[in-house]
Amino acid sequence: MTERMIVVGGDAGGMTAAAVARRRRGEDELDIVAFERTPHTSYSACGIPYLVGGVVTDAEALVARSPADHRERGLDVRTGNDVVGIDLDRREIAVVAEGAERREPFDSLLIATGATPTRPRLPGIDARNVFGLQTLADGLAIRQVLDDRPPAHAVVVGGGYIGLEMAEALVGRGVAVALVEASDQPMATLDPDMGGMVADALRGIGVDVHLGVGVEGFDTGSDGGVSAVRAGDMTLAADLVVLGLGVKPASDLARAAGIDVGPSGGIVTDAQMRTSAEGVWAAGDCVAVRHRVSGEAMAIALGTYANRQGRVAGITMTGGVAEFPGVLGTAIAKICDYEVGRTGLREEDARRAGFDPVSARVESTTRAGYFPGATKMTVKAIADRRTGRLLGGQIIGKDGAAKRIDVMAAGIWNEMTVEEFAMLDLSYAPPFGPLWDPVALAARKVSDLIIG
Amino acid sequence: MTERMIVVGGDAGGMTAAAVARRRRGEDELDIVAFERTPHTSYSACGIPYLVGGVVTDAEALVARSPADHRERGLDVRTGNDVVGIDLDRREIAVVAEGAERREPFDSLLIATGATPTRPRLPGIDARNVFGLQTLADGLAIRQVLDDRPPAHAVVVGGGYIGLEMAEALVGRGVAVALVEASDQPMATLDPDMGGMVADALRGIGVDVHLGVGVEGFDTGSDGGVSAVRAGDMTLAADLVVLGLGVKPASDLARAAGIDVGPSGGIVTDAQMRTSAEGVWAAGDCVAVRHRVSGEAMAIALGTYANRQGRVAGITMTGGVAEFPGVLGTAIAKICDYEVGRTGLREEDARRAGFDPVSARVESTTRAGYFPGATKMTVKAIADRRTGRLLGGQIIGKDGAAKRIDVMAAGIWNEMTVEEFAMLDLSYAPPFGPLWDPVALAARKVSDLIIG
Repeated sequence: MTERMIVVGGDAGGMTAAAVARRRRGEDELDIVAFERTPHTSYSACGIPYLVGGVVTDAEALVARSPADHRERGLDVRTGNDVVGIDLDRREIAVVAEGAERREPFDSLLIATGATPTRPRLPGIDARNVFGLQTLADGLAIRQVLDDRPPAHAVVVGGGYIGLEMAEALVGRGVAVALVEASDQPMATLDPDMGGMVADALRGIGVDVHLGVGVEGFDTGSDGGVSAVRAGDMTLAADLVVLGLGVKPASDLARAAGIDVGPSGGIVTDAQMRTSAEGVWAAGDCVAVRHRVSGEAMAIALGTYANRQGRVAGITMTGGVAEFPGVLGTAIAKICDYEVGRTGLREEDARRAGFDPVSARVESTTRAGYFPGATKMTVKAIADRRTGRLLGGQIIGKDGAAKRIDVMAAGIWNEMTVEEFAMLDLSYAPPFGPLWDPVALAARKVSDLIIG
Repeated sequence: MTERMIVVGGDAGGMTAAAVARRRRGEDELDIVAFERTPHTSYSACGIPYLVGGVVTDAEALVARSPADHRERGLDVRTGNDVVGIDLDRREIAVVAEGAERREPFDSLLIATGATPTRPRLPGIDARNVFGLQTLADGLAIRQVLDDRPPAHAVVVGGGYIGLEMAEALVGRGVAVALVEASDQPMATLDPDMGGMVADALRGIGVDVHLGVGVEGFDTGSDGGVSAVRAGDMTLAADLVVLGLGVKPASDLARAAGIDVGPSGGIVTDAQMRTSAEGVWAAGDCVAVRHRVSGEAMAIALGTYANRQGRVAGITMTGGVAEFPGVLGTAIAKICDYEVGRTGLREEDARRAGFDPVSARVESTTRAGYFPGATKMTVKAIADRRTGRLLGGQIIGKDGAAKRIDVMAAGIWNEMTVEEFAMLDLSYAPPFGPLWDPVALAARKVSDLIIG
């Protein structure tokens, strides 16, 4: 008999799981049906700032696989279908489409409801031209505003990666941009010293950066559009506002069904992506991930995690062996010429997790110092003083600097000490770096501090 | 009482060891004397092709530390001093300088005699304008020829990294270049499929590539300069010949003293860089390195190994704890726009080492596919079918493709399986790669082949 797998939500985690399951089981064995509220599946949310900035012109290019592509591959994808309930006892979901609710039975269920952008209930937040940044529709709407009536002043609220990328995109479109961030630095996932360098870089490209200031509300003009942002004792002129305040796991549906949701708001799963309910899996931004170093359960919305979790769920839901081994919070961003990468624990995180952090920051270059085009890069390495274990890494630079964070991620992942990391057999030739690769150099400096 | 450490040879391994030892022990505790035959110490041999090509104009820029710099840092560096014997019983070395031989006592000895370029006894090899490529003097001499009387035709003998870099440098100087390589592919450290792509790239930049052909001799013109290279049934016009036939460990001095030298020709050491003789260490290109995956003892001349071994020797010679943990043969090269990286075992190496290799080759991009400036890159991953262990990686591409080999090196180093490697938390943003980083994608494809 043909079994039926239902995917709730078109998050990348769900669509990857569906595709992997289809590769492993033919249509005679397994029906796969995915229900998604919006018209889109499988697009690159990370590409939206580049769509707004005009770096990417064709919105279709961001769509990895359209619903039609999925259908061609044997997946029954139903967009405009909003799942409103999960009945674990009856093994059914409740779906609303075109105003009517109906029930759909499942043998196995995958929850891939993704994440919801944070949108605080501030006065004026519903004014025209105050945009979120989560969906392709958001990105297209902002681009339309820029094309139709370019704003004189834009305010980006929130100094995370996507806020910074949006600030860059708007600067690139010739708009005067202010950034308002409630904490004392942009990119809260960096240590303060490295975050300070990012703030300097932002100011360097002309962004008016306001740190340690919370947004209190939005003024509206006579035309119903936003006219200013009120933050602390400032009133910042704004005819466009972009909210980059992060996202929260969309776990309400799971919670309502009695499925375990953790303190981070993410659905709790085991390494096979099984939830607390028999026959129910979850993958993607709606899930809590385990940090491999701190052991902490966290909500981090990243397409790379969604895809990997989807792969695991697709394999385990069809009887195979796979596991999602946790995360390090590795991230990278490009702000004009600057590149920023980070992985693992910050000093503060390390302290909280019970380590005794010791760190070193080195200035190095992207090519051999004597090689034309060499640019400066800063690498910070953080280790545990007692064991020498590498705990975290952060990089700021230009011209290929930040992608080197992946080597530090691999070192942290494998619980390498800084001394061993400095001994790693990394590639060297003058066009690619100095003889001591900057990441190895940073580890060596920390090791010197430990061994004395 | 002040002890006396002697360094034989100015190889990077020796000078690093001396500097590290000096940092750990003051001049009141330890005398450090280094004897080097040539006038130079601590320069970037890898930078020589760029000096020849004119990318780097100032030869001084390649010198990391001159003898005078070392002296300022408390190291007694004596250039023009040729060590001709080591007397282990008397704890003395014999040194020839300015025609006179004398003896110098030591408490601890570090052999850092480096490597000697291969120069086969072929007819005509001593003709004018047939150059080796090992020393700064070689590089300066070739550049002089190019500046004084630019050759019409150059032949590079040997298709290793440095041969290819020289071919590029000469093309860049407007010379017609032929490359002759005895084996069936350039870059013998790549699998044949990847080596074939390199050959295509070389031809693409106008190099006349001859594979599977050995050089038999050199014709000399009436002026005493080389006029042609004879190879197989070809006679290739050449008014400049560059020999890039690799190097051999300079271990004769050690062998003559009764110190163990391995089958690779490299001096045998333990992980602390101690030789078979009490109180005698060795570091750098004269030493045999252990391949971490195959266990094989190999001679690989690389500045990165020399520096790391020097660090270890400098620490252990002064009573500290450190070890050189072996190598993976990681390497990288840039040939015009193309970049090539490799690490670990080739398929053939894996088979010889008793593994059952399974591999996948993927085409991916250096940025998200939709991002402007994305260029194609090819990644090959090799694993053991029985255990899934990642054994080797190879990359060919442009624009920052090849440096990603370091992540594969870190994965192989830590004995990761391809399935776990595919799950690594690598950084992602559209300007830096697709959602599945190319190296993770290659590993995932191999894992798919294994898990079915």
